[in-house]
Amino acid sequence: MVYVTRRAQFCASHRLHNPEWTDEKNEAVFGKCNNPNGHGHNYEIEVTVAGKPTTDTGMVIDLKALAAIIEKEVIDKVDHKHLNHDVDFMRGMIPTAENIAIACWHILASKIRDGRLFSVKLFESENNFVEYRGERT
Amino acid sequence: MVYVTRRAQFCASHRLHNPEWTDEKNEAVFGKCNNPNGHGHNYEIEVTVAGKPTTDTGMVIDLKALAAIIEKEVIDKVDHKHLNHDVDFMRGMIPTAENIAIACWHILASKIRDGRLFSVKLFESENNFVEYRGERT
Amino acid sequence: MVYVTRRAQFCASHRLHNPEWTDEKNEAVFGKCNNPNGHGHNYEIEVTVAGKPTTDTGMVIDLKALAAIIEKEVIDKVDHKHLNHDVDFMRGMIPTAENIAIACWHILASKIRDGRLFSVKLFESENNFVEYRGERT
Amino acid sequence: MVYVTRRAQFCASHRLHNPEWTDEKNEAVFGKCNNPNGHGHNYEIEVTVAGKPTTDTGMVIDLKALAAIIEKEVIDKVDHKHLNHDVDFMRGMIPTAENIAIACWHILASKIRDGRLFSVKLFESENNFVEYRGERT
Amino acid sequence: MVYVTRRAQFCASHRLHNPEWTDEKNEAVFGKCNNPNGHGHNYEIEVTVAGKPTTDTGMVIDLKALAAIIEKEVIDKVDHKHLNHDVDFMRGMIPTAENIAIACWHILASKIRDGRLFSVKLFESENNFVEYRGERT
Amino acid sequence: MVYVTRRAQFCASHRLHNPEWTDEKNEAVFGKCNNPNGHGHNYEIEVTVAGKPTTDTGMVIDLKALAAIIEKEVIDKVDHKHLNHDVDFMRGMIPTAENIAIACWHILASKIRDGRLFSVKLFESENNFVEYRGERT
Repeated sequence: MVYVTRRAQFCASHRLHNPEWTDEKNEAVFGKCNNPNGHGHNYEIEVTVAGKPTTDTGMVIDLKALAAIIEKEVIDKVDHKHLNHDVDFMRGMIPTAENIAIACWHILASKIRDGRLFSVKLFESENNFVEYRGERT
Repeated sequence: MVYVTRRAQFCASHRLHNPEWTDEKNEAVFGKCNNPNGHGHNYEIEVTVAGKPTTDTGMVIDLKALAAIIEKEVIDKVDHKHLNHDVDFMRGMIPTAENIAIACWHILASKIRDGRLFSVKLFESENNFVEYRGERT
Repeated sequence: MVYVTRRAQFCASHRLHNPEWTDEKNEAVFGKCNNPNGHGHNYEIEVTVAGKPTTDTGMVIDLKALAAIIEKEVIDKVDHKHLNHDVDFMRGMIPTAENIAIACWHILASKIRDGRLFSVKLFESENNFVEYRGERT
Repeated sequence: MVYVTRRAQFCASHRLHNPEWTDEKNEAVFGKCNNPNGHGHNYEIEVTVAGKPTTDTGMVIDLKALAAIIEKEVIDKVDHKHLNHDVDFMRGMIPTAENIAIACWHILASKIRDGRLFSVKLFESENNFVEYRGERT
Repeated sequence: MVYVTRRAQFCASHRLHNPEWTDEKNEAVFGKCNNPNGHGHNYEIEVTVAGKPTTDTGMVIDLKALAAIIEKEVIDKVDHKHLNHDVDFMRGMIPTAENIAIACWHILASKIRDGRLFSVKLFESENNFVEYRGERT
Repeated sequence: MVYVTRRAQFCASHRLHNPEWTDEKNEAVFGKCNNPNGHGHNYEIEVTVAGKPTTDTGMVIDLKALAAIIEKEVIDKVDHKHLNHDVDFMRGMIPTAENIAIACWHILASKIRDGRLFSVKLFESENNFVEYRGERT
């Protein structure tokens, strides 16, 4: 078994805000991430597929094909967007790094036919990142 | 003469939009950077001060002091903000990387008393960055 | 389950030296890392917490809170210090990357109340790094 | 148990090509990676060894010794080479990242005597990388 | 005046070889870079344009347009190629980093109409890079 | 004219301390950089040579030769050392980044015979770096 990873980037805005809470509670919990006009990041996503390389290609999954899936299913929908307002698959969710990674996992898992999706890692910045592997606690 | 540089980061949203133009022209010129709800970046700013190290400290400027100036004058005003709506020193400007760098230059130049401000470099992403040195064309 | 990571930096000196050995044996085993006056690194530490995001925040652990724990418990004690002489929690240990990571794990494990500490990764340089997950061999 | 990693670099050419296929099929499957004159990369390899630090050194494995093994067994054989033509241990294999990682694993596993080889990670570029841990699917 | 930079990547093979020299002299001068089957790199190119931001766009040059010029004029011609054999604009030149940068300068200079080409920087690896600014010695 | 740069790394300790001052003044001016037992960094040095590529090699200076000069004249003398105690060419100087860069310039300038030394850039960390070009103020 080999783990194959493709990295991609997107630029997006978001705001951490729970609409069921008062403004005071939102600011107390989310701090500057609750800024009403939002803020943004250069996000990086790393998608890892696990599988056995085939004998005739030496590949688990064609990295060009994996890149195209990530581009079509994720990047085209989130790049240069506001995650709270412009992205269907994030609707009703607080766009924390955790929730973005879980949402991307569910979108990508069914599209990957060579090997199986092993991990989605999302970097909000050099210092903050999360990883989801489809595990239930 | 030695050139001393301090790097800092901030996360912000912006939208490229000229209010004197129609929506169609804005979209034609700025493309996805014109998205009405904005998008965002992890910006990096590099501030370079030129001068002669003093004999008793071996420094052009105390890097802790330079870091504090950048933090107070720039980062505190732009980090986790929307550059079109939340930042006084960007008011009335289209927040391109060029204009942000020029605006930061004008804010910082008068605050630096050891050495003189030589350059403000602003990275919007790994692939896009600008530099302003206070030169008139 | 989501894995949430916060990265931090510190600058420190150390010397690899076993006081129970002769100088000759120390130099033979540790080489230039045994230099009597020590040498130093820009260390990077990545602390990973595993858990389930709560419904009302979308977070496993507030990254600002995790950053504050790392700052108070680790960075404030090791940054701009000599690991052999200035750091209580390293006393009596040879400050290899392995031992620093294990020591940081034991300090951090009990302080993290949202989720559980999953991993401490310590980079001595771009080319040398270690990870400890609290596993017994 | 601690996981200790050493990173190294090499520059090499390769061409993805299955000699049992027609030129048309090779081009259809491998695309621009099938360019007859080949292309190249700055590869990075990360070799991870797992084990228990010894009491008298505080190390799982001496990183200088691990670096020397990687240099002798891998880097000296692939650096500034063409992987399809110049490297004995790649003979008869399509030099995909997957196959290079697996080949390096088999070369390194028997040479590491302190701790045990846990992982070989190979970066073809910032955006494309693979990992092999010796697992059978 | 503002300096605007766009970065791009390409993967290519090359061989340092002067056809007017004997094999012995080539090997003595170019060392392992003279390997007959070539070797390769993940090259990075940074193209800097200098100019004055226009009032109505806030830009020196549209970075999307600059990226498209670099893609069409350089990347499409060198990516996944062998620089000695597959690239018209390198014909008859020894493909050192210096010569690649000079050749890219001459290709790009006439294509940039907003602002003027200020610099072409070419990274062969993290540790080796060159810059050409169109200066005559 | 082309600018050719070689990057190298070294790990060292230092302490900012002016022996002509009281301990109180040293601590007031240098803060945590004055820690009596010192602290350390993974330094990076970038050495830039300017010149005209020769016709028969396509090079300003052989990068292998430049790397060897940096290794012999700088890295061998500072790597895994304490800059205040172990390095002859830093004796009597406060080892700020500014002073290290100036000292390296003077060592390297006379050793470079192909092209001329243009710049020495020294990174103390990702966020703090200096450059010296041999200019008098």
